[in-house]
Amino acid sequence: MSAIVEKTLEKFLERIRQIKSYEEALGVLYWDMRTGAPRKGVESRSKAIGVLSSQVFALQTGADLGEWLTELEKPETLASLNEINRKLVTETRKDFDRSVKIPPKLHEEYVILTSEAESFWEEAKASGDYASFQPYLDKIITYTNKFIDLWGAKATRYDTLLDMYEPGITTEELDRVFGGLREKLVPLASAIAASPHQPDTSLLKQTYAKEAQKKFSTFILDQIGFDFQAGRLDESVHPFATGLSTGDVRITTRYLDDDVTSALFGTIHECGHALYEQNISKELDGTTLSTGTSMGIHESQSRFWENVIGRSRPFWNRYFGDLQKLFPGQLDVPVEEFYRATNVVQPSLIRIEADELTYNLHIIIRYEIEKQIFNEGVTAAELPALWNAKYKEYLGITPENDGEGVLQDVHWSGGAFGYFPSYSLGNMYAAQMTETLEKELPNVWELVEKGELHPIKDWLTDKVYQYGKLRTPSELITAITGKPLDPDYLVRYLERKYKDIYKL
Amino acid sequence: MSAIVEKTLEKFLERIRQIKSYEEALGVLYWDMRTGAPRKGVESRSKAIGVLSSQVFALQTGADLGEWLTELEKPETLASLNEINRKLVTETRKDFDRSVKIPPKLHEEYVILTSEAESFWEEAKASGDYASFQPYLDKIITYTNKFIDLWGAKATRYDTLLDMYEPGITTEELDRVFGGLREKLVPLASAIAASPHQPDTSLLKQTYAKEAQKKFSTFILDQIGFDFQAGRLDESVHPFATGLSTGDVRITTRYLDDDVTSALFGTIHECGHALYEQNISKELDGTTLSTGTSMGIHESQSRFWENVIGRSRPFWNRYFGDLQKLFPGQLDVPVEEFYRATNVVQPSLIRIEADELTYNLHIIIRYEIEKQIFNEGVTAAELPALWNAKYKEYLGITPENDGEGVLQDVHWSGGAFGYFPSYSLGNMYAAQMTETLEKELPNVWELVEKGELHPIKDWLTDKVYQYGKLRTPSELITAITGKPLDPDYLVRYLERKYKDIYKL
Repeated sequence: MSAIVEKTLEKFLERIRQIKSYEEALGVLYWDMRTGAPRKGVESRSKAIGVLSSQVFALQTGADLGEWLTELEKPETLASLNEINRKLVTETRKDFDRSVKIPPKLHEEYVILTSEAESFWEEAKASGDYASFQPYLDKIITYTNKFIDLWGAKATRYDTLLDMYEPGITTEELDRVFGGLREKLVPLASAIAASPHQPDTSLLKQTYAKEAQKKFSTFILDQIGFDFQAGRLDESVHPFATGLSTGDVRITTRYLDDDVTSALFGTIHECGHALYEQNISKELDGTTLSTGTSMGIHESQSRFWENVIGRSRPFWNRYFGDLQKLFPGQLDVPVEEFYRATNVVQPSLIRIEADELTYNLHIIIRYEIEKQIFNEGVTAAELPALWNAKYKEYLGITPENDGEGVLQDVHWSGGAFGYFPSYSLGNMYAAQMTETLEKELPNVWELVEKGELHPIKDWLTDKVYQYGKLRTPSELITAITGKPLDPDYLVRYLERKYKDIYKL
Repeated sequence: MSAIVEKTLEKFLERIRQIKSYEEALGVLYWDMRTGAPRKGVESRSKAIGVLSSQVFALQTGADLGEWLTELEKPETLASLNEINRKLVTETRKDFDRSVKIPPKLHEEYVILTSEAESFWEEAKASGDYASFQPYLDKIITYTNKFIDLWGAKATRYDTLLDMYEPGITTEELDRVFGGLREKLVPLASAIAASPHQPDTSLLKQTYAKEAQKKFSTFILDQIGFDFQAGRLDESVHPFATGLSTGDVRITTRYLDDDVTSALFGTIHECGHALYEQNISKELDGTTLSTGTSMGIHESQSRFWENVIGRSRPFWNRYFGDLQKLFPGQLDVPVEEFYRATNVVQPSLIRIEADELTYNLHIIIRYEIEKQIFNEGVTAAELPALWNAKYKEYLGITPENDGEGVLQDVHWSGGAFGYFPSYSLGNMYAAQMTETLEKELPNVWELVEKGELHPIKDWLTDKVYQYGKLRTPSELITAITGKPLDPDYLVRYLERKYKDIYKL
């Protein structure tokens, strides 16, 4: 490598470290805002976030960075870089091109619009008044379309949005996998609904002492392998995970008095995200590759731990006794009854309360609607009717008002079109990986039954976590399972599980 | 104001807002590091802090800022500015001149040196091994002397350092006020030691439940007027207060099982700092004037609330019942006994454990030593002997090892020479303000006895808090009391209080 190239590489890597540092600092500010920052400080804090964000944008879009990239992208130079630096160049180029195409003024207008829209959305959701929110959604769709024009449409216009959250995914592929899912899950859900063997969930709905819930959450995190020296557990209204660095990954949960499962599975879910971020290779520390490779792969980890492991019979065979001890007299039932109760399937209106099976139908509905918005020009005005028709068709139920219908999710108010598919991609990736895990670690369920969960974490570290953003989602899933993304794994997993529970 | 000047002013004010935003973000990062950030994240977080700090330094020392200042400082322009903007120009000029005189490389070396020195200091303190720390202290003194050369010495070299913490204070003035103090306090302390009426402190040294301590801290904060919507209370090993904005002022405390007074008075102390920061005028929001005007004035507020109010008889006449209820069976003594126990005077080796009276002697010792270092060339090698001689002379006691002697404070390892006097300045300012308060609010002690503390907070807001950094310490004290800083107020206050307690 020539001295000039070396100098350029050094400047480029220094810029990457700066960007990562700003992202870490902003991550702390967001975490703080959501875990107890005083109300009266919000205005000033928002300004500080604005100042730092502008600086990140400037660092990401500087003409100097463009020049360094052009130099480093020369084929012979690129070939001389190590794998990490090569990937950093290609990933940074992608972000750079996307960012510089948006005029700063347009970006600023959009930021203001979406931050305003979120509070109007909250009000509209509470009152079920879609009409008051529709003009904002209209504008957000308009801006998003402008962005697609500036970025350039991929195979379809919606593909451009999908790619931001799940690099490489296309509507063509999602049509295929979601089509396969829908075809199998709709009849499975119907069969379950018709089964006379419905679990009794009443035992979950008692009053559960918060301190005991907290103890169990902490205990389970430790069992799964969450590193408390590289992370912490706090409380927030909406649980989340945030990886500030591999040495500082924070999760939150929410303890509900009248529902022991909310914190229980919520904690395990966020722990899955956290294990991913804590176990990224130290070689990627301080670079923008030290993060999950996509939303879908990230969700695959949270959902793997929450559902595949956390809602499994072997898991509760091991841990139900510990739970019972924390709530004396409240859970005096056979473990099987608890297992069934935590795996009830029930078509419902609200995505975030949905079970493991119907959840995917909630997602498919949103995917189909988003696709229609950007590929077929469906307008904000048409959404409530479209939404309700699809809920009727796929889940057999209809919202009483738009608050529990089309207004239920925050995503669109923030312009996050293209995000929803990640959730079901996560379910599919998780099921597909599980089959390989069962082959490569044949005693996996015995281990779970003994509470030896670390070999599973180690397997996932080896296959997924260590790579951070170094491999794409499709590279990962193919390397792990030998096959591209395939919905049949998830269908098989759900059929096996629920035919047993519902005795179909 | 011409359009050009207006444009310059706008750019200048925007820069100020940016600097303030970075300071706020850094404040959150520091708070987070000290209240529970995971250990393994420290390295990455330190880098992020480094990146943000460098950017603040760049914003504070940019050639553009220098040009704007030169333009705004033209007499007719300066005269046309409002009071706040005028003060911003003069204060920013002061910081600018100080910062640009230090070559960035020297600054960086110094930052690395002091951050290394702090961990060596910790070890040396723990083992009492001064020799291992001496080379670092030597270097820090050398660097500090270089800085004084670059900044230019004021009346004496040590004056240059003093001015950073207490703008306008001089060794000449400190010699005068500390001389006055020492002359009166040394014999008073001797008389107290000789008194047969020593308070019984054994009741403080029981085991006090942490949860009850926490409740009392929260209760007292609310009583004094801490705004929990504009702040929060957390725990940390070393209690501190940090004002991120007027809407977000955070304090910490430390609950010791075997000492109920540590959290009790620690919380009230930090609350004093917090009241100051929470009640700065909103007109100063987002500017670098929205902070305390000096360390001395800041300490005057923490010490006023902790000692003048919090260790007063009327305060405990009102609140002792509440404390008793939280510790049933543990405090069954007359309130007078508790009052006396919390006001015991006892010469001791450790500054941070010292009582209200001898505390000042600890400070005077440090002041005299620092002055000798920078004005008389006393070296690091000479410090232990000097230290021990002064402790013998002023307090009549000698450390058994340097860990409880010259190594006890963190300040010098961080290069904070000139900071110590602030503590006693705070005591003096507080006593001086108290006499005016008693004149202007003649029923003040009746109010305290009734638990009506808000009029006191309001008086201090009117006299001190609202101004932030808009007025200098000497402007404040003169405006409030009609007189410049005078040690006699503190002497009078201490004599009145302790002659009563010790029946002298």
